Parts: sequence; C-alpha cells; structure tokens
Amino acid sequence: MIAEIIAVGSEMLTPHRQDTNSLYLTDGLNDLGVQVAFKTIVGDNLSHLTSAASIAIARADIVVFSGGLGPTEDDLTREAVAAALNLTLRSDPAILTQLYKRFAARQMVMPPNNAKQSDVLDGATVLDNPTGSAPGQFLDITVLDASGQPIRKIVILLPGPPRELKPLFDTEVKPRLAAALPPRHLAKRLLRMALIPESHVDARTAPIYQQYPDVETTILAGSGEIQLHFLCAKPTLAEAQQRVDELTEKIEAEMEDSIFSSHGESLEEVVLLNLGLRDLTLATAESCTGGLLAQRLTAIAGSSRYFLGGAVVYSDALKTTFAGVPSELVATKGPVSPEVARALAEGIRTRTGASLGISITCIAGPGPGAPGPDAEKPIGLVYIALASAQNTQVKELNLRGDREMIRWWASQNALELIRHHIL
Amino acid sequence: MIAEIIAVGSEMLTPHRQDTNSLYLTDGLNDLGVQVAFKTIVGDNLSHLTSAASIAIARADIVVFSGGLGPTEDDLTREAVAAALNLTLRSDPAILTQLYKRFAARQMVMPPNNAKQSDVLDGATVLDNPTGSAPGQFLDITVLDASGQPIRKIVILLPGPPRELKPLFDTEVKPRLAAALPPRHLAKRLLRMALIPESHVDARTAPIYQQYPDVETTILAGSGEIQLHFLCAKPTLAEAQQRVDELTEKIEAEMEDSIFSSHGESLEEVVLLNLGLRDLTLATAESCTGGLLAQRLTAIAGSSRYFLGGAVVYSDALKTTFAGVPSELVATKGPVSPEVARALAEGIRTRTGASLGISITCIAGPGPGAPGPDAEKPIGLVYIALASAQNTQVKELNLRGDREMIRWWASQNALELIRHHIL
Repeated sequence: MIAEIIAVGSEMLTPHRQDTNSLYLTDGLNDLGVQVAFKTIVGDNLSHLTSAASIAIARADIVVFSGGLGPTEDDLTREAVAAALNLTLRSDPAILTQLYKRFAARQMVMPPNNAKQSDVLDGATVLDNPTGSAPGQFLDITVLDASGQPIRKIVILLPGPPRELKPLFDTEVKPRLAAALPPRHLAKRLLRMALIPESHVDARTAPIYQQYPDVETTILAGSGEIQLHFLCAKPTLAEAQQRVDELTEKIEAEMEDSIFSSHGESLEEVVLLNLGLRDLTLATAESCTGGLLAQRLTAIAGSSRYFLGGAVVYSDALKTTFAGVPSELVATKGPVSPEVARALAEGIRTRTGASLGISITCIAGPGPGAPGPDAEKPIGLVYIALASAQNTQVKELNLRGDREMIRWWASQNALELIRHHIL
Repeated sequence: MIAEIIAVGSEMLTPHRQDTNSLYLTDGLNDLGVQVAFKTIVGDNLSHLTSAASIAIARADIVVFSGGLGPTEDDLTREAVAAALNLTLRSDPAILTQLYKRFAARQMVMPPNNAKQSDVLDGATVLDNPTGSAPGQFLDITVLDASGQPIRKIVILLPGPPRELKPLFDTEVKPRLAAALPPRHLAKRLLRMALIPESHVDARTAPIYQQYPDVETTILAGSGEIQLHFLCAKPTLAEAQQRVDELTEKIEAEMEDSIFSSHGESLEEVVLLNLGLRDLTLATAESCTGGLLAQRLTAIAGSSRYFLGGAVVYSDALKTTFAGVPSELVATKGPVSPEVARALAEGIRTRTGASLGISITCIAGPGPGAPGPDAEKPIGLVYIALASAQNTQVKELNLRGDREMIRWWASQNALELIRHHIL
C-alpha cells in the first residue's frame, strides 16, 4: 500500500512557507506500514487541485489531503476531490447546525459562505473536529483502474492547521486506517550520540545492524548529533520489541558512552538527569555563547532543581565582576585562553556555590579576536573548562563554520564534557 | 509562465527530512516573474520519477529538478527525464575527464558507476558545478502538447546539496532563464513589526496596500513578529522602486513606531543599532528565560560593543548574589513579582555599570510557581523591568502557550521594551 500526501494552499508555493504536516502524517502512516511515495504541494486553484487529486488517486492507494477545508472561496479541496472522483457534495444538516451554533455562541451571524464547510463527499464518513470548524472526511471506495479493474482507494481530507490536523489524524484517521490494513505491531528505539562523525558511527554500527534486516535502521546527522532510529514490525509486539532491543543492546556495547541517550532523551535532559542522580548542581559562565548553554538547560522544565544559573561574562570587566577572574589575567593571556577559561569555571563555581562550574570562551567570528593577546588567535578557537571540588579540566577545540555553528558546537561540547565528567 | 519544482530523494519521504531547496528556487523564480504552481516530492524510484517528470512537463512551462544527480544506482533523475521526453543520454567526454581528474587528485580510482554523472540529455546545456561532481543541465526544447501544438518547455536538472544547488542556480540558471523570459525589473521591501496581532496590522494596512494593486503584498505572522513583504515588477527598476517606496512610506506613517525595521533587519540588530546610535550599553538579568535574551543579542556579530553581558539568576540565591536583590524581598513578594523584577533590573545595571539594565522573571510552566508567594500565580505571568539612570519601568504580561512560547514572547517583549525606551 502506498500513500500520497497533498498539501493544499498557495502560501506553500511562496518562498516563505513550507508544508510541515506531511512529516507528521508520514510518521503515522509508516507506523501503520504504509510508505509515502509522493508528496504534492498545490495552490488554491480548482483546476490544479482537481488534476492533482486525479493523479494521486490513480497512483496511490491512500491519498491524504491537508488544507483547503476552510470557509473561503479559496478553500477548494472538497470541490476538487468531488470533481476528481465524480462524486456529489451534499450539505450535512448535523454539521451545518454545529456551524450555526459555533457562531451563535460568539453572538455572531454566520456568513453564508461558511455553509460550504458542511459539504460532505457522497459516501464519506465525517471526522469530528473538536478544535476547529472544518470536519475531516474519510472515504473508502472502489474505483476502476486504467484497465477497468476495480481497486480500493482511501481518500482522507484533513484541515490544514497542525493543531487541528494532528489530533484528528491520531484519533479519527489512524484507527480507521488500522482497521482497513493488515494488523501490524511496531517497536521503535532511538539512540542519540553527540560529537562523533556520522562516518565513524556508520563504520562501527553497520556490521551490527546489517545482521538485522528485519529492523529498519535510519541514521540521521545534524547539529552536532547523530541519531540512530530503529523500527521493527512483527505479528506481535513482543517479537518486534525483542528484535529492536537485541539490536540496540549490541549497538550500545559497541558505541559505549558515546551514546548519551538510549530512549530518545535530549542531551540537555540527560545532563540534568545525571546531575539529579548524583545530587549535583551546576552553574555556567559564558562568554562567546552569551547564554546559549544556560538557555538550553533552562528550556527543560524542572531544570531549576539542578541548574542554579550563572553569568553571561561577555565583556572583559564582567569576567572579573561575576567570576572573580583577575583582570591582569584577562589582559595578559587574552579572554580566549585556557587560563581565563579555568578561572571562569572555578570562579563561577565559588560565587554560586554550585557543585560544578562550567565556562565557555571562544572566538566565534566573523571578526577576529579583540586587540591584544587574542588578536592573532583563529576564529573557531574554543576553551571550555569544568571545575569541580576535586579539580578543573580545560578542553581546547578548533571548530569550523560560521558564528552560529561555532556557538552551537561549543555549547554541545560543554554539555558532553559535563556528561562525561558525571559518568 | 508557471513552474513546477520536483525534489528527488527517498529521504524526503520519511518523517525526518524535508525539501528546503524549493524555497530558495521559488524565491529566484518569483524574481524572474515565474510563479510556482506545483511542487512534487518523489523517491529514488525510476517509474515514479519518470511519471512525475512526464506530468510536470505536461502541466508546467518550467520544470526544475533538485537531486538525483549523484553517482549511485539510486540517482535516477537523468534517466527519468530522458525517458519522459524520449531523449537519449550521451556521455560527455569533457565531464568524464573532469570526473577522472577529481578522483586522480585525491589519488583514488573512480568506481565505474560514477561515469554516469557525465551523461547529458540530448540537446541540454551542461551547467558547470564548481562545488561538486554532478553538473547541472539546462534543456530548452519544444514539445507537442496534448492537442499536437508545439509548445516551449524549459527543464532544469540541479544537484540536491544546497551548497551546490544555490550557486549553480544563481550563476548558471537565473541568467539563462532571464534571457528566455520577458525583461522584468523588481523592487522589494520588507517591513517588520513585533507584538502586534496580524488582524490589527491587516485592518490598518489593507486600505493602503489595496491602492497599490501593482505591488504584491504578503503578510507573514509568527514567533511574535509580523512581516510585510512588498514586491513590484516594472519595465524599469526606478519605476518599481518608486512604487514600493511610496507604499512603504504610507504604511510607515500609519503604523509608526510599531515598525521596528524598514529594511529587513532583525529586532536584535535594531536594538543593538539603537544602543550604538545613543552610545548606550545594556546588561541582562534573566530568570525564567535563562539566558535566551542574552543569547539572542550575542548571536549578532559585533554585539559586544553595546551588550556587556549579565546574569542568569535562575535560583533565588543568585538573584541576590549577582543583582543584589534582598533575599527578604524574594521571600515575601515571590521571585515572579514586579518588586523583584525592578530590583533585578536596577541591581544588574549597578553591578555591571551598564547604561540600561533589563530583567525578566516569569512562570514559564508547565508546573506552577515555586511554593510560597508564587504558588498561586498563573502560568504565563511575566514581569519585565528596564532600569536607566533616570527611572525604572516594570511591565506585566499574561502570556499564553507552552514553556517555549512563553520564554520566547517574554524575550521578544523585553527587546521591544528596550527599543521603545531608546526611541
């Protein structure tokens, strides 16, 4: 069974907006064993949309439309599908009543045009949409293929706003599709690693995962992280889970503590979790990353138990004010130096009373380091220091990329340094 | 003239990866007066790809393929287009020599499969690709339409990696398309506003921009910002520019200082620019945003001239340590209170010696405020204070949304508060 997803809306044919619903829909369809073979993006144009609908219904078993169910003249998905399948649209009295009620509840008169939202394709099941005015539609029909043979097609119409589409797809569409498709039980696992080249991960893990042809392995790399996604479908969940767990165990044995997460948690979550397990607290002193590390940690709910805060020591003077770094040290070694990184980490630890103090100082570019000792240092030079009650370690990095990448990778390295220290 | 963009690659039919090249290509095509009417995403499957190519060539005047030009068996764009147009592929000796040279330069033997990258569609112009091994192809041909009439079609093959596709499109494709299309001169402007509902912007600006039907107006809203894009094409650039500038001027007069940027600069850039113009410096004391505001400012190169840094006063104790907030004040009023916000802004200003001190404290959720005075305060309650030598202003907000949204909007409000203060 193959599917096509059609995203409807002229705004997605501009340079400014992109279809993202299809990623969510694809994930759900894959869970049911359905591969997406085509995605089409088409504007609010009846002839374009009708032709796209005809093509999709001819080449895919399942066609999912997102968008074009609103009340305006530009909302044409219902009309296009009716034209493509030569079906009539009839106004559903129950939906129409609901529409009038929605407006009445806001003490407004419904514009006549909105009545089209009650139009239902002949034979379609109406999918109740609690979060919006446009219901979805689910059509399970038999059509004749090019050679005149009867063939089953499932056509699904969903509203475009993601907060309406997602719950509607999960609660109304997935159970109906599952009932229409062969039973299937899926197990999934996600391993995450940081700061390791994709080619190394693949070289070390391919000999393992290739022994599991029944587990679909996907390696994704980006933003200083590698993800290994495993997916297995079996007649029973226990069988599927057993295969995925067995493979994951072998990969974990091979990659050891390069793996920061074996059930999909983010690096920030894992660092906070490990701090919590050992009852440790953390404080940050950031120069070039300017709060990025603290921001990443505090994005996690509950971080306040283990993350105290810290300082953004962007100017030289604040390195002294907030972390007690001697100003002569900054002047002689330069703000981007192992000595200043060390003093920052130790200073922020002392000032905040945290168990661990971490500092980041770097030349993020695009301009060179400040006049003085840093003037000749290369863009991408980073020092990260981690101070504990026992000792302070300083790490030097030479990163490549633009300002954004250097800052991100510096924060990623800092998180990994904390994680490895705690382990 | 309408265009279709076909993104080729099975990875873009998974839940994990998305076509983004089409946004860049659309921008460039729009500049040339070409609208994109369809986008198709298709996997590395010869029959799917050939059928998608046939459909696109039938319904669009210009078809741009991205991807599928690599050396592997999965790279099938050349073959599919040849099949769709019934053209032969011939190996180009010059490209083949180049391919051998690339491998020789790395002291490697070229695998036989790579030779397919020299295959060129009969009649196509080869587009030299300095950043990769796969050249592009540009085909300007006449085909017969469904009714047997001759019709001109332009078919363009581009490599998938964005760092190869973008320069190739700009330097090799755009000039060729411009020569094939009617001359056109474009003027563009971008106005940006923050913290104002889209409906208000539209209600106030529509009566103005509707008087300029020759200027294409696009309103985009998201992340606490509204963008107004204006685009005008005329026989001369001066005419186009004059129309766009005249419209922008009227919109600026209507929206006044709601507009933070009249040439596309970001809010962070505008705040830093305004600090610079008045020779002011800034420091931050962030509680719930945990460094997000500082991180946004320091993401801008050159920010160190006007942004000194600050403190992430996540724990109550650090509010005292770094900003001198009396601990009794935190205990009695709660960390999320106008009094603590004021003390934080004034304290950080004094400690850092900055001209302006700004603080943010809020209940970001998903959990409730800390036990004590904050326990009953609602999620989304935010206090922002801005302290200058003259006075301190405190702003209360009640934001809706999840933790990420509340933090983002709080930082957005803080930037706007600084901007308005400086104005």
